[in-house]
Amino acid sequence: MNKVFEHKVRVRYGETDKMGFVYYGNYALYLEEARTELIRKAGISYKEMEEKGIELPVVNLNITYRKPALYDDELLLKTTINNPIGKKIFFNTSIFNTNNHLLVEAMVTLVFFDTMNKKVISCPEFLEQKLKEYIC
Amino acid sequence: MNKVFEHKVRVRYGETDKMGFVYYGNYALYLEEARTELIRKAGISYKEMEEKGIELPVVNLNITYRKPALYDDELLLKTTINNPIGKKIFFNTSIFNTNNHLLVEAMVTLVFFDTMNKKVISCPEFLEQKLKEYIC
Amino acid sequence: MNKVFEHKVRVRYGETDKMGFVYYGNYALYLEEARTELIRKAGISYKEMEEKGIELPVVNLNITYRKPALYDDELLLKTTINNPIGKKIFFNTSIFNTNNHLLVEAMVTLVFFDTMNKKVISCPEFLEQKLKEYIC
Amino acid sequence: MNKVFEHKVRVRYGETDKMGFVYYGNYALYLEEARTELIRKAGISYKEMEEKGIELPVVNLNITYRKPALYDDELLLKTTINNPIGKKIFFNTSIFNTNNHLLVEAMVTLVFFDTMNKKVISCPEFLEQKLKEYIC
Repeated sequence: MNKVFEHKVRVRYGETDKMGFVYYGNYALYLEEARTELIRKAGISYKEMEEKGIELPVVNLNITYRKPALYDDELLLKTTINNPIGKKIFFNTSIFNTNNHLLVEAMVTLVFFDTMNKKVISCPEFLEQKLKEYIC
Repeated sequence: MNKVFEHKVRVRYGETDKMGFVYYGNYALYLEEARTELIRKAGISYKEMEEKGIELPVVNLNITYRKPALYDDELLLKTTINNPIGKKIFFNTSIFNTNNHLLVEAMVTLVFFDTMNKKVISCPEFLEQKLKEYIC
Repeated sequence: MNKVFEHKVRVRYGETDKMGFVYYGNYALYLEEARTELIRKAGISYKEMEEKGIELPVVNLNITYRKPALYDDELLLKTTINNPIGKKIFFNTSIFNTNNHLLVEAMVTLVFFDTMNKKVISCPEFLEQKLKEYIC
Repeated sequence: MNKVFEHKVRVRYGETDKMGFVYYGNYALYLEEARTELIRKAGISYKEMEEKGIELPVVNLNITYRKPALYDDELLLKTTINNPIGKKIFFNTSIFNTNNHLLVEAMVTLVFFDTMNKKVISCPEFLEQKLKEYIC
């Protein structure tokens, strides 16, 4: 319970912009990677979920940029899931650099979409069990 | 006064993902393009502003995804600026497809950064004058 | 005959990197946009082609970077198609800035893929007719 | 001598396109990451090189796409450097999936650019020493 999922990402040159910082839209890729690895750690791959007919489209992204991430920075992403998981799931991620400065805070909201029946569903029981330990 | 700035963007193949939709992080590029063209329409290019020593880094992005934008869609972005402009400037953009469906709503918050003195400043007077007509 | 297809693209902030230049992988998006618009100009949209079961995956990209494209540059892409079109189609694109400097030369090779029968085919007759005028 | 540098990259959702494959321009990011890690392994970071006033802009990319890389694929990139290193450096990278299928072959050509004197130079001696073991 109350576990924080930690994941590291290295900033690529092509992810920066002419200001020398990570472009504000590119954090979406880092957040996606952290979610994917959290789900994999919980015992299922997102790819398998899609193959089983469950997609998780993003319905909201709220992201605050406190300090810039720079080229070649090794970023630490700390992610938790909000309680409870219902039709929506909320991933909270804080991004730190190696100096332990908080750079970015983001909340990503996704829904569970049943691709067979083309409708939003509640989080499947098997998945909720797996994700439980990261719920805060 | 009370003017809405309209700008069109065509969705590229490389901006979609395997779901067939525009990837959630790529809307940042469309929002940037709309802001840039609004500022140009107001009489100054963002490039010139940077050359004069004023940068507008994004400090927050809050974006809600209602329906997916698809490959080759011609999107209409309607943008206004919140009143008043102070140390922060808030751009509100709604994105529609050609069926006039509302796909995305976003608020992007930026600050005015004086690159010479390395500090956040209030919106320069000349710029506020130019942007005024898009303030709602 | 011997027609050159011209298309303009404006460089976005998020397409530059910390060197201040367009990132070398991002020209792929501009080349795609030029191809798409050439095909549309010829009378069919690439989207419709896909819906009819013909995809054009890229099998080779050979791109030479002579001078950098910069943020906010309005680039002119001049595209022709190599003679003849067979199982492969070769798009040649030269990219110029507004000073008429040649920045980039690229050849993109694509094949015609029949999604129904899962195999590479020759360029469909109707399409070859449409594209003929851009063949050099 | 004759060493091949191996590096793994996981395909992100946002790097795929609606065909379900990695977009042809996005391999540039993987190739960059492999180069960067090869250089780091050789004992210097590309970031430090830039800080010392040496940039390596890409002057040519020649990339052949044999089979598509898919979402969540763990790709293996095998990179060598062509002999000799002069004013240009040639990185050859082959990309494999976990089934050991060859997906992509790429040669990236870069030059050494002295940012102080604004001119192309030969590979600095200290760097050539470090990179030697990956030359084939």
